[in-house]
Amino acid sequence: MAGFAEECAVVGVYGCPNAANIAYYALFAMQHRGQEASGISSANAQKIHTIKNQGLVTSVFNQQNLAKLQGFAAVGHNRYSTAGDDSIFDAQPVFARYDLGEISVVHNGNLTNAKTLRSELIRNGAIFQSFLDTEILTHLIAKSKHQHLQERITDAVTQIEGAYCLLFLSRSKMFALRDPLGFRPLSLGTIHNRDGSIGYIVASETCAFDLVNATFEREVAPGEMLVFDGNKPPQSFMLAQQPLQYPCIFEYIYFARPDSTIFGRNVYHIRKAMGVELAKEKPIDADIVIPVPDSGIAAALGYAKQSQIPFELGIVRNHYVGRTFIEPTQQIRELKVRLKLNPIREIIAGKRLVVIDDSIVRGTTSKQIVQILRDAGAKEIHMRISSPPTAHSCYYGVDTPNEQELISSKMNLDEICHYIEADSLAYLSIEGLRKSLACGKEEQFCQACFDGQYPI
Amino acid sequence: MAGFAEECAVVGVYGCPNAANIAYYALFAMQHRGQEASGISSANAQKIHTIKNQGLVTSVFNQQNLAKLQGFAAVGHNRYSTAGDDSIFDAQPVFARYDLGEISVVHNGNLTNAKTLRSELIRNGAIFQSFLDTEILTHLIAKSKHQHLQERITDAVTQIEGAYCLLFLSRSKMFALRDPLGFRPLSLGTIHNRDGSIGYIVASETCAFDLVNATFEREVAPGEMLVFDGNKPPQSFMLAQQPLQYPCIFEYIYFARPDSTIFGRNVYHIRKAMGVELAKEKPIDADIVIPVPDSGIAAALGYAKQSQIPFELGIVRNHYVGRTFIEPTQQIRELKVRLKLNPIREIIAGKRLVVIDDSIVRGTTSKQIVQILRDAGAKEIHMRISSPPTAHSCYYGVDTPNEQELISSKMNLDEICHYIEADSLAYLSIEGLRKSLACGKEEQFCQACFDGQYPI
Amino acid sequence: MAGFAEECAVVGVYGCPNAANIAYYALFAMQHRGQEASGISSANAQKIHTIKNQGLVTSVFNQQNLAKLQGFAAVGHNRYSTAGDDSIFDAQPVFARYDLGEISVVHNGNLTNAKTLRSELIRNGAIFQSFLDTEILTHLIAKSKHQHLQERITDAVTQIEGAYCLLFLSRSKMFALRDPLGFRPLSLGTIHNRDGSIGYIVASETCAFDLVNATFEREVAPGEMLVFDGNKPPQSFMLAQQPLQYPCIFEYIYFARPDSTIFGRNVYHIRKAMGVELAKEKPIDADIVIPVPDSGIAAALGYAKQSQIPFELGIVRNHYVGRTFIEPTQQIRELKVRLKLNPIREIIAGKRLVVIDDSIVRGTTSKQIVQILRDAGAKEIHMRISSPPTAHSCYYGVDTPNEQELISSKMNLDEICHYIEADSLAYLSIEGLRKSLACGKEEQFCQACFDGQYPI
Amino acid sequence: MAGFAEECAVVGVYGCPNAANIAYYALFAMQHRGQEASGISSANAQKIHTIKNQGLVTSVFNQQNLAKLQGFAAVGHNRYSTAGDDSIFDAQPVFARYDLGEISVVHNGNLTNAKTLRSELIRNGAIFQSFLDTEILTHLIAKSKHQHLQERITDAVTQIEGAYCLLFLSRSKMFALRDPLGFRPLSLGTIHNRDGSIGYIVASETCAFDLVNATFEREVAPGEMLVFDGNKPPQSFMLAQQPLQYPCIFEYIYFARPDSTIFGRNVYHIRKAMGVELAKEKPIDADIVIPVPDSGIAAALGYAKQSQIPFELGIVRNHYVGRTFIEPTQQIRELKVRLKLNPIREIIAGKRLVVIDDSIVRGTTSKQIVQILRDAGAKEIHMRISSPPTAHSCYYGVDTPNEQELISSKMNLDEICHYIEADSLAYLSIEGLRKSLACGKEEQFCQACFDGQYPI
Repeated sequence: MAGFAEECAVVGVYGCPNAANIAYYALFAMQHRGQEASGISSANAQKIHTIKNQGLVTSVFNQQNLAKLQGFAAVGHNRYSTAGDDSIFDAQPVFARYDLGEISVVHNGNLTNAKTLRSELIRNGAIFQSFLDTEILTHLIAKSKHQHLQERITDAVTQIEGAYCLLFLSRSKMFALRDPLGFRPLSLGTIHNRDGSIGYIVASETCAFDLVNATFEREVAPGEMLVFDGNKPPQSFMLAQQPLQYPCIFEYIYFARPDSTIFGRNVYHIRKAMGVELAKEKPIDADIVIPVPDSGIAAALGYAKQSQIPFELGIVRNHYVGRTFIEPTQQIRELKVRLKLNPIREIIAGKRLVVIDDSIVRGTTSKQIVQILRDAGAKEIHMRISSPPTAHSCYYGVDTPNEQELISSKMNLDEICHYIEADSLAYLSIEGLRKSLACGKEEQFCQACFDGQYPI
Repeated sequence: MAGFAEECAVVGVYGCPNAANIAYYALFAMQHRGQEASGISSANAQKIHTIKNQGLVTSVFNQQNLAKLQGFAAVGHNRYSTAGDDSIFDAQPVFARYDLGEISVVHNGNLTNAKTLRSELIRNGAIFQSFLDTEILTHLIAKSKHQHLQERITDAVTQIEGAYCLLFLSRSKMFALRDPLGFRPLSLGTIHNRDGSIGYIVASETCAFDLVNATFEREVAPGEMLVFDGNKPPQSFMLAQQPLQYPCIFEYIYFARPDSTIFGRNVYHIRKAMGVELAKEKPIDADIVIPVPDSGIAAALGYAKQSQIPFELGIVRNHYVGRTFIEPTQQIRELKVRLKLNPIREIIAGKRLVVIDDSIVRGTTSKQIVQILRDAGAKEIHMRISSPPTAHSCYYGVDTPNEQELISSKMNLDEICHYIEADSLAYLSIEGLRKSLACGKEEQFCQACFDGQYPI
Repeated sequence: MAGFAEECAVVGVYGCPNAANIAYYALFAMQHRGQEASGISSANAQKIHTIKNQGLVTSVFNQQNLAKLQGFAAVGHNRYSTAGDDSIFDAQPVFARYDLGEISVVHNGNLTNAKTLRSELIRNGAIFQSFLDTEILTHLIAKSKHQHLQERITDAVTQIEGAYCLLFLSRSKMFALRDPLGFRPLSLGTIHNRDGSIGYIVASETCAFDLVNATFEREVAPGEMLVFDGNKPPQSFMLAQQPLQYPCIFEYIYFARPDSTIFGRNVYHIRKAMGVELAKEKPIDADIVIPVPDSGIAAALGYAKQSQIPFELGIVRNHYVGRTFIEPTQQIRELKVRLKLNPIREIIAGKRLVVIDDSIVRGTTSKQIVQILRDAGAKEIHMRISSPPTAHSCYYGVDTPNEQELISSKMNLDEICHYIEADSLAYLSIEGLRKSLACGKEEQFCQACFDGQYPI
Repeated sequence: MAGFAEECAVVGVYGCPNAANIAYYALFAMQHRGQEASGISSANAQKIHTIKNQGLVTSVFNQQNLAKLQGFAAVGHNRYSTAGDDSIFDAQPVFARYDLGEISVVHNGNLTNAKTLRSELIRNGAIFQSFLDTEILTHLIAKSKHQHLQERITDAVTQIEGAYCLLFLSRSKMFALRDPLGFRPLSLGTIHNRDGSIGYIVASETCAFDLVNATFEREVAPGEMLVFDGNKPPQSFMLAQQPLQYPCIFEYIYFARPDSTIFGRNVYHIRKAMGVELAKEKPIDADIVIPVPDSGIAAALGYAKQSQIPFELGIVRNHYVGRTFIEPTQQIRELKVRLKLNPIREIIAGKRLVVIDDSIVRGTTSKQIVQILRDAGAKEIHMRISSPPTAHSCYYGVDTPNEQELISSKMNLDEICHYIEADSLAYLSIEGLRKSLACGKEEQFCQACFDGQYPI
């Protein structure tokens, strides 16, 4: 089975007097990418200090413990995955003492050869204290025969396959890498320190830059390694170059915040364009367009614009949902989705609805949404999904369930529509999705979750 | 000085085997009305048990302590106010043992004669352990000469003035009251227990009914007292009748959830109508309409619809904001609003914006919003406020600052526009607001915060 | 039913720049008198601030919250009683706002007319938010017709009966009182502030003085009220004088720390003298004398000295026992006493033991102790109790169970011996106890728990 | 620098349906050996589950998390050391996944070749995530070329030097080892399960057996490995045999609980015998003998018995001392020892004291004890130490400070006496210590802390 570094946020800060503090805010801005655990390592040339725990950024860190994370450099991580042991040992950064000193690593993505690497390392006497792919990297670096960390990282990275954005922190340097196929996003920004010096930030999403007042410089290129060392600007090395790249198309559909720029495009714009294409492809006569909030909003605006059917925010989302919940009463148990989503009867009742959602995974939530809309008096419910059917598992870092659990791998369109009890159901086509991205024929995306064409 | 029971949520449940559990979910649905403290009292004919503490509903209660709140009846409260001591003794319900046994009280609103009543009670030897207006009621009831609780409540209520929705829980009965002018909302619903019996729920907002699968029956009328006792349907008594009523117009503008029905109208619809009226009254030539989320969304949709200027969700809201925050770095401190709100540069840049917000209180947040939009490249920023200028303090339960802190009481329109550095600024007129409510001439609202005409 | 202010510690500090800090340490030194809840109120002339919660002193307070308790005066309390609601509302100090301002009260003892007073107050319209006797006092003071707090306290105190040491804190003054019969201990000490000024401390036990480096001055006299106001030494007023006094003899037997001086005598010395008398009265031929630690140690040393039988610390006490315990396995459940006490087999095996304990309440613990000693190989077990049989409940502040649960009220000596399965059992006589105290004929103690002669 | 597995408690349970529960109670009984962190791993044939954290046993575990530790076998650990990072990653058990599956290790002791082994492992590409010596063992086992875990453990153990008691838990077996020189204690006991089957327990101290109702069988022999597998009794293997053994003499002096049997002798008896020898060697004319509680009590009883000077428990110990303390006021800061120890003035004043302590490390505490006794009116203070001067650091698992901080390595007897301001000072001689142990000439102990003769 694949590893555990899925759908996460990473951040690295270098050359700032309060690096951990900036990393904290960047993680806060990227909380949507992982709510399971959070951690930061900082380096002050002498040593690396790490704090990590389960929970949201704001609950893991407080004024006291953040103050211990001193130094000019820091790497941080938000973890998404809920699988495996609920152990704090599966939180990141992963820290190790090894022959060159100390190192801390954070990882967003998923290594496709993790199982092989892990087995081989274990066969050669390595021990693993967690289920994290990230721990593999610390072993590869520790075992590399090269003299310098940079060479070792290069060495290690040649051995791994899959999707990864990696940040390595030593006691005095920081390294940022993106895999050659460029599955996951990683951007570089600059920070103007108060003393006039320039610091650097690398993060999964540009929304982190906005919060810490950093300036977006560029994406880290697929296959590129940035080396941060001393006062110099980061040096760039191309570790590998591939003719084609496969950025994850699902970042646009679901993961990324709409205010982020991912793979050169603003997420909100893309989502809205998906809605436009969806309206072109799968029109329907209806009274109003409503999104499943929050992820469906932009696509619904696009659908409404194109179809000229009025947009209404007909479902209200409760944002106070916490981690631990009281066992619901019988009244509530059947429709757990109500804890999060509540339709506005006065908008819904008697109406023919186009309901826009970004995707359908198992189908259970969609079924419940249809039901609460029906209860609210909807006359017709036309589900329109702003992406193609998700019929295949992701091996590059998206926490999709096993293929057997994906409703689109088991049922055809009619069957799904029947299962969720909608009046009609339609998905955006892969072509429509590509049109939304306005990509030329030459531009590739990883769309394996839709078409099963795995780049690796 | 005014009391402390401002802008809160109350809920009462009667005749349900798991009353406290239902109250818990109802409070969860109404978390937006108060995040400071939460509490529930339950009654099982023998005794009343109370648990209350500072924090969100989901942090105050857990499976263990909620299980202690046994009984067929419960009252609960979410507290908003951040003023005063940060003491748990200012949480509700307020519990008392007195000559008739035990009583627990929750209160949404504000007594205008609290100071007088408190002084008089204190002069006559009463002691107060909190700053809550609610504690006054326990004293009035305890001191009443009447034999029965119902008479004593009636007696107590004749002595109080102001805005109030009150729920009283004795060991076997529950009483729900709304003030004669009907300032604050209170609705009655029914719950179908699994054993076929009927239970009752009374709550500030109808969104609570949706979550617990209750059926909205009607509003509790201004001046009405409902008495819940045994298996009978609640008995209704009109304690006082006033020729005119003054429901709080601000519930429509800001407090209530858009999926609630307040004073007979759906909140979302009203907000959208305000946007329509605002567009009629204060049109402007612009490229896009964007709301300040979440409260400005419905009005912005109305403005966009009326003005035919495209709507865009151009500002993203971060919902992970917790209570305790790390001291921001210099980079962040100046624009604290960014922790919550981030503009989407790709939507904003080069555009002439109509920005819709529900109100301006001190002006500091508006000023920061203008600045982050300017930083995101906005060409013009036209602030449009979906309510009239808030120039007067509220004495009926809205936690507005002192009049001196209200920017509209100190500056005229031009000055405010200049202060917040917008290109133009306009408010909805009182007439426009009333039009949005589609109210006949005879229908009154309390709009004292706008016009200074205090009903009491 | 009796009230809830039983077996506690009180402390008051006046005229010290860091009064709450000193109160904290004094409560820490008196933790043995109550582990259920802890609280401190401080006053700084402007207002009173209170923090109280369930738990040990060291868990209720931390650097942050203690820093909020500013001012030159403070009163504090450790609560013992485990009965009733486990509510933080039954923690002390009890705080009230009333016609003269603010007041905070702590109480060690038990009012014998609490029920009557409470009923009367309730009949006259008072409300009670806790089960504490202390709350009665705030009502009496608030309702008194006198102008000044001092007169009101005097007024209130004339209405109460029973055992009490009371400390009242207003915004600028402090009052300390001891009941006319002098049931519970209360001592006055002085503190040399760093600025050369003199501060004052009043505490249940003198061991608190040692820790905060205060100088013992004298006991507060039965019936005396000390008034602390401004820079003056405390003024003394005799509120009531009784021909006889009845200090609680059980303070010597069990409650007080051996390093405290109570009612003019050092506790350790008295306990040792009890052991000497016990050896004279109830000799037995045996190999070693062992105490049930820690309370039986001093008496065992006395018994050993007098009997010339060697003393051995044959039972080891585990001091890490916390409040919440994992459900024991079957192996452990039957002898829960082992969690606290473990005999040293190598000392016990084959020996004839004299086992010294301070008292037998229900008999269940003694029975378990006999069994674990038997398991450790004891040849004979002769229980010797350093006090007379506890056959009567206490109404003056000791948390004894109902008389029906006291084994000595249900069984005679032989029956108890048989029940606990000892080889012999003997108690110190009342005469022997008085001899240990070396008290003249005229000197009285409250020994109602032994002889049922209740002073009130 | 030395490692981090010092002065700890280990426990292993095998063949019991509730192994983790028994381990929990055993750790509770051995809490005195380490209060810094606690952890338990359990195995149920399928997998190993670990919970560990900083804090006391009773705070790390609760009913909920202990219930997750299912299985018939468990190993547990209490950690003492306060050095290094205050990281939970320095808690034990140390867990690893490796080529043979899963393993969990606990360790009491200290490897003298840890630095070398760690360097070599690191040079060969190993990574370390903690500072624990224990982590070395997981590497050695993972890298061993042998097929079976048992052979690998044997292999690993041949490479380590120093003091160790080690427990290894695989998914179905448990291994217990004691180093060939037998520095640290480890005993084997049996547990009668309710179903009639026999389970096994291995623990640092026998006091753990008493609490869980286990029967002491024998010590694990120096150099012995016990293998627990299936329903069979443990198999014994002698991994190494040394002509001489060196059990740690300091276990008798300070570490072990007096109710434990260590290296074949009861600790209480030995301590008392030390006091007898000390009185013979270093008599003094005095009025009373008082111990520094709790560790000095047994020796003081011996001294008193031999010298015929009366024993008094003249210093009271406060057992409520927690981990986090409020910054003391000036009054308290100078004598922090008072938080723990308070002399009884009425016993001390005017007396010539023999004060018995188990050892003097830095001298600062002794100096403070002399001062508080002086303050309590002592006429003469004669310090008598029931062990020889501690002049050398321990490399076998006792957390002594660096030699430079040991007062006995810097000062002679007179200088120390002068420094602590005692009237006289004397230590037990090494010969006296050996006499207390009644050991024949051939029997060795490790007494390197006294004589600098390091066995390894």
